[in-house]
Amino acid sequence: MCQLLGLNSNLPTDICFSFKGFKARGGGTDIHGDGWGIAFFDGPGLHIVNEPQPSCRSRLAEMISHHPFPASNIVAHIRKATVGAVRLENTHPFSREQWGSNWVFAHNGTLLDFTPDFDGRFRPVGTTDSERAFCWLMQEMRRRFGDVRPSLDVLFGWLGEAAVTLTRHGVINFLLSDGDVMLAHCSTRLHYVIRQAPFGEVHLQDADLGLDLTASLDPEMRAVLLATVPLTRNEDWVAMPAGSLWAFREGTVLATADTLAGRIPEGAQACS
Amino acid sequence: MCQLLGLNSNLPTDICFSFKGFKARGGGTDIHGDGWGIAFFDGPGLHIVNEPQPSCRSRLAEMISHHPFPASNIVAHIRKATVGAVRLENTHPFSREQWGSNWVFAHNGTLLDFTPDFDGRFRPVGTTDSERAFCWLMQEMRRRFGDVRPSLDVLFGWLGEAAVTLTRHGVINFLLSDGDVMLAHCSTRLHYVIRQAPFGEVHLQDADLGLDLTASLDPEMRAVLLATVPLTRNEDWVAMPAGSLWAFREGTVLATADTLAGRIPEGAQACS
Repeated sequence: MCQLLGLNSNLPTDICFSFKGFKARGGGTDIHGDGWGIAFFDGPGLHIVNEPQPSCRSRLAEMISHHPFPASNIVAHIRKATVGAVRLENTHPFSREQWGSNWVFAHNGTLLDFTPDFDGRFRPVGTTDSERAFCWLMQEMRRRFGDVRPSLDVLFGWLGEAAVTLTRHGVINFLLSDGDVMLAHCSTRLHYVIRQAPFGEVHLQDADLGLDLTASLDPEMRAVLLATVPLTRNEDWVAMPAGSLWAFREGTVLATADTLAGRIPEGAQACS
Repeated sequence: MCQLLGLNSNLPTDICFSFKGFKARGGGTDIHGDGWGIAFFDGPGLHIVNEPQPSCRSRLAEMISHHPFPASNIVAHIRKATVGAVRLENTHPFSREQWGSNWVFAHNGTLLDFTPDFDGRFRPVGTTDSERAFCWLMQEMRRRFGDVRPSLDVLFGWLGEAAVTLTRHGVINFLLSDGDVMLAHCSTRLHYVIRQAPFGEVHLQDADLGLDLTASLDPEMRAVLLATVPLTRNEDWVAMPAGSLWAFREGTVLATADTLAGRIPEGAQACS
């Protein structure tokens, strides 16, 4: 299993505290030591840091956990390789430009026998099933909607159908963002929590570390935090139902749908 | 003026020493304080770190200058904004996927009245003339060669013609790499130096810092270092002629051509 971490908020905020707990799972408190990556959106601008090494021992990850990069959308990933070697080009999140926006994607799960035809517009650089799924999503999105980006409602409906198609091949928990909206699909395991005033003190699951959010956050801030496994032990994390698709914007749930995801092949729980 | 830094070598190496001098020019020893970025290729994998802040005061740039990221192709940039606000999406290097490879591009110069039509396949995210030039190059490359990547000879010939077209709009010193080859065009100012055994001791222009390359480099290593302005004061940097296009692979000059670049508009020396 890999693990996902996401943030979507109404005001730019940093993820230092949560990332401290998350990065510990990359070879420290958990086994996901085959690479890590984190994507920060600053408006339409995108900044991805990634390495094909355990995040728990990475000096760069250590620095990211202390250096505030304010962002309203963040997607992070720690990898336990199943499909594709331990190499930089196989680390998540992946990114592509579509309709003049940066899109990022990270995946937890394994897709079996997913070898779509690519028409050349979006082609994988690495060898993971995850990047194949992302390029296929980008390609089919373009085929369906052409050169003009559809409304979020329309895109959300289409993504639900695409998630059903992908789920026929296995487990596809994913986070997908263009810096405006955060789209999340739960095949098997994904949680979220909403942080808003009045804030309290939170404690990490993976480190003896607490943070008083009242002192550190703008009272106007509202943020959704997404994680494969809850990162804190004293917040009300919501387990997202299998087959559910979600859209978050500015720290609120904008839409949710049951994609009736269909059969998940046995033995397809691990992640690439 | 922005500034460019590039590396192309036959063995993965780090650029810590050179980057120490280069990053000082981003708001310290020189005026290019409107953002910085550095792209490392690890095989086909790509890792870009960038910020819309002065590199001379960036903790992330400081870390990059101490943390070895071994790579055979590196493209770095420090920005003095002329076209496009000081924002993350306007920092170089830019990247896009083409033919299943990552391509990166960084530009020094300003293009005037360069507003090409984009067919949607590659579209700028930010507002610089530089990203427009890159997207145009990617688009025209695809239009010319379709879905199959041409030989380097053919691509090089085509790139010379494209550079002539771009030069009609202003100054376009650029570095372009797909992780295999480093392509460099000099409109007005670009230098290179080849480092190979027997190595000596080198001294930075921008800091009181020297390095004994004999002690730190594999004797089999051969590397080309490219810079807008020479980074060291005791090496034989070659000033590339105006209008010249170069291809480097594994630390050697693979090809060079005089593109007969044509007229450069006056007052178009600054960079975006």
